[in-house]
Amino acid sequence: MVFETNATVASFGGKLLKLSHNSTVIGSKMNLNLYLPPQAVAGTKVPWIFYLAGLTCTGDNGAEKGFFQTAAAKNSVAIVYPDTSPREARYEGDDASWDFGRAAGFYINASKAPWSETYKMENYIVDELYNALPKEFSLDPVRVSIMGHSMGGHGALTLYLKYPSKFKSVSAFSPISNPINCPWGQKAFAGYFGEDKEEWKKHDATELIKSFKGNTDILIDVGTGDNFYKQKQLLPENLEAAAKESGIPTGPNGLNVRFQEDYDHSYYFISTFSSDHVEHHMKFLQSQDNLIDF
Amino acid sequence: MVFETNATVASFGGKLLKLSHNSTVIGSKMNLNLYLPPQAVAGTKVPWIFYLAGLTCTGDNGAEKGFFQTAAAKNSVAIVYPDTSPREARYEGDDASWDFGRAAGFYINASKAPWSETYKMENYIVDELYNALPKEFSLDPVRVSIMGHSMGGHGALTLYLKYPSKFKSVSAFSPISNPINCPWGQKAFAGYFGEDKEEWKKHDATELIKSFKGNTDILIDVGTGDNFYKQKQLLPENLEAAAKESGIPTGPNGLNVRFQEDYDHSYYFISTFSSDHVEHHMKFLQSQDNLIDF
Repeated sequence: MVFETNATVASFGGKLLKLSHNSTVIGSKMNLNLYLPPQAVAGTKVPWIFYLAGLTCTGDNGAEKGFFQTAAAKNSVAIVYPDTSPREARYEGDDASWDFGRAAGFYINASKAPWSETYKMENYIVDELYNALPKEFSLDPVRVSIMGHSMGGHGALTLYLKYPSKFKSVSAFSPISNPINCPWGQKAFAGYFGEDKEEWKKHDATELIKSFKGNTDILIDVGTGDNFYKQKQLLPENLEAAAKESGIPTGPNGLNVRFQEDYDHSYYFISTFSSDHVEHHMKFLQSQDNLIDF
Repeated sequence: MVFETNATVASFGGKLLKLSHNSTVIGSKMNLNLYLPPQAVAGTKVPWIFYLAGLTCTGDNGAEKGFFQTAAAKNSVAIVYPDTSPREARYEGDDASWDFGRAAGFYINASKAPWSETYKMENYIVDELYNALPKEFSLDPVRVSIMGHSMGGHGALTLYLKYPSKFKSVSAFSPISNPINCPWGQKAFAGYFGEDKEEWKKHDATELIKSFKGNTDILIDVGTGDNFYKQKQLLPENLEAAAKESGIPTGPNGLNVRFQEDYDHSYYFISTFSSDHVEHHMKFLQSQDNLIDF
């Protein structure tokens, strides 16, 4: 058993498992949450969706406040809530600010020392958790999607655009959509990668979408009352413009950036639209077998 | 204006207001949250439900994790989330334990010094908030119900049983149902009231229900995996037995104690059943006018 189950919590007819494991990629212990809908608890292999959280968060925020479980139970899909950075390895300055270091792993593999030693959240998600979880839990190894919020929205979009064969679909809540052009992204990328801006582009959704050839039915929600949107940390308009320039359809069934009147950056916003996002993914996660079953 | 609105947060088409006011009853500043469904935001007076939180909580826990907003928006009902004790007045020992003093006001008016000076959560709820909120917000002054969790379940049940003319209905999640016979209740009542056990009975749902003549269609959910239930802090079985002995109907449409297999004491439990509770209250909060409208 790779994963230790520290608690099993009943939720919406299914079980939320509070897991920990010794991560090979990160090199130390990591915590995560896994919500199994009733069908998975009963032993059916179900599709699953990564939910990547934002700055300052752990795997608990989405599980406690995102309210994905109601739609997950209804749609027979599991949700995985990983942490946002390594926790046990410590480096000078890793707690100095809330937008770099601990809880700010940005879902990339750092190339600059000392971060390059353990800050490998990209491989942690797309290799280690992706492969290990279906071996131990009732999850379908190929029906996998990804979503996230803010920094985790950046993570979801970029990991999807980099690894289109691994994920059936992507969605994001208020994502950092063009990190190379916003203060959060510039600080993180300079810290984790150094000053090579060509390297930065490989981890930027707005850059990556220009040459993307996969499924571009992508749901993005952004609140018009979101102060980080107003401060141009998120820049979903840049992602949308890049898609249009590249001939990628926008709007419903394309790159669908929905501006939600007056909503902010909080979990009150996420929870309001979490069912929409789960249902977006179900369009791509329901197998033909499932469709025949119903 | 009695209430200051510190923040307005969009949620499920309505608004969560983060309020504070100088409470006359408590004698200092108190914080609370008020969720207004879309219809109230648009100016229609809507019915409302108090949600009383448990030990260690503030008015934020239910608002962030209880997930009442989804059913509140759907059913056009507002939810009020008060704090659990005075905050500004401080007394020796008020932070010494998590089950007495701060965040453990037990929704009673203390009679023992020094607590009797400000620990008056009973009057704070049933008089001050009850009267002041409809004057300032789009709330119907008579269509009011009450629910709560754990200590707040005790609060909801006892305030309902004491003031049947004020509340149309009551429900509770894992309530402290017989405080005079459990360690939490005995400690709190000894601290707030002294050793007069006849006085204690006036604040105990199991005692109060014996002579209750109002609406006994009461919904209570308790998780069988709840450690506090197992430790006999909650004792819903005593409440149920007292109702039966008093000829009060039990089960659906009576005092309906539902034991939910494997659920614990957490907000994962509450959120799973929060829509059921809102819908329970709507049976009693929908006016004839509303029924005609639909």
